[in-house]
Amino acid sequence: MLGLFDSGVGGLTVVKELLKRSPNASFVYLGDTARAPYGNKSAETIKRYAIEDARFLIDHGATSIAVACNTASALALDALRTTYPSVRFFDVISPSIDATWRLRPKKVGVIGTRATIGSSVYERSLKTISDGAIDIISAACPLFVPFVEENWIRKPETKRIAKTYLAKIRQKQVDALILGCTHYPLLQNVIRSSLQKRVRIVNAAAAILDRIAAEAPELMQDATSPSQTFYFTDATAQTQAIADRWLGKHVPCQTTELL
Amino acid sequence: MLGLFDSGVGGLTVVKELLKRSPNASFVYLGDTARAPYGNKSAETIKRYAIEDARFLIDHGATSIAVACNTASALALDALRTTYPSVRFFDVISPSIDATWRLRPKKVGVIGTRATIGSSVYERSLKTISDGAIDIISAACPLFVPFVEENWIRKPETKRIAKTYLAKIRQKQVDALILGCTHYPLLQNVIRSSLQKRVRIVNAAAAILDRIAAEAPELMQDATSPSQTFYFTDATAQTQAIADRWLGKHVPCQTTELL
Repeated sequence: MLGLFDSGVGGLTVVKELLKRSPNASFVYLGDTARAPYGNKSAETIKRYAIEDARFLIDHGATSIAVACNTASALALDALRTTYPSVRFFDVISPSIDATWRLRPKKVGVIGTRATIGSSVYERSLKTISDGAIDIISAACPLFVPFVEENWIRKPETKRIAKTYLAKIRQKQVDALILGCTHYPLLQNVIRSSLQKRVRIVNAAAAILDRIAAEAPELMQDATSPSQTFYFTDATAQTQAIADRWLGKHVPCQTTELL
Repeated sequence: MLGLFDSGVGGLTVVKELLKRSPNASFVYLGDTARAPYGNKSAETIKRYAIEDARFLIDHGATSIAVACNTASALALDALRTTYPSVRFFDVISPSIDATWRLRPKKVGVIGTRATIGSSVYERSLKTISDGAIDIISAACPLFVPFVEENWIRKPETKRIAKTYLAKIRQKQVDALILGCTHYPLLQNVIRSSLQKRVRIVNAAAAILDRIAAEAPELMQDATSPSQTFYFTDATAQTQAIADRWLGKHVPCQTTELL
């Protein structure tokens, strides 16, 4: 069974894509809302949290894990693979790189948390895949995650901050923008309206599902009685509201302790 | 020795006031940055974190503890007193209520995290102390803490959000505003400029130090070789920068595990 984790509700954008393709797939989701956000924390803390999150999913039946959090994908993937060598991990970064490369862009914008952007993983991967041919403009957008977790996704204040964060990327006239955080698809309208219309948006949710479909299609098989569980380390009313609205149906969010 | 804790850097506003009065007092500070913020989490999670934070301070020599976090003061004070009956706890709420009452205001604004405002503790206390004579206008400002932890304290975006959060309080023409979160003094200029000039601002840092000075002056005694330690569960460069700037000198911030 597939397990997915994120610092909070952001990974639900990956779940939404999974359910679009396989409404009756079985999976177990963990959002670590009691310790969210991850993106402004240190690499050591992020690794420790990711290892604990994966342990929880393994204990709850996951045999493969989608790291539905760019911050954890950027900083903890090696640690996860070393800690759990028998588990197959899918990250959200490498499929986004492939999807971006297929667009053959000249200039690419990348946005993410401070930790993700600080890791430079997108820059390095895009330089490698394009043999240095792609210009990359990165911008950390550390307040986007709190805005999403607050459900402030259409407010004038959110638009204002998006404009500030994306100013340099807009000015450089990029061809494509990578949403380097699974929370950001929830802000897609605001982000899109801050950039030129022709900019192609690369959303990790579709990219990681393409990867899973290609490499482990059995994880997306529809079951007769699918098991679909949503755990959060702190499932508040806010968490529940965002989950229900984003997934377009009521999904019971359970609070769990990790250890 | 006095221990102080907060979810992050906010409690440093209390430390700053302590150092202003007693530059050579001994104390141990804990900021739980690895799990910050607290104010959008559930009461159960906040209680659990507060109990763990206090345990850490007790293990590091604290005999009295200043709960330098309004969210923990609002939701975890009873649990702390029950869990550690031999420790003396000072909270930031009851001294602010006394300080507000001394201003004899007719209308009072209260701002805080969602958890603090949701607890209604300020409303109840002000109603009781004034025998129902004070009008209270509360507003949750959940994004203020992320803004402070991001060090975005003078940005136009911060002013814009402050204006939105404080609109109702401004409109009601309050006489006094309680900063019901220890992070908010860092935003004092922005908050002040969103309100009428005559509004008196009640800052919990001064109020809790008045209380400690009155009830346990020995905790504020200057020592020849004071022990002043700053622990954070995740001391990032950001944490260090805010601590140094706010306290006006370099204070080494150490990362610690709680358990």
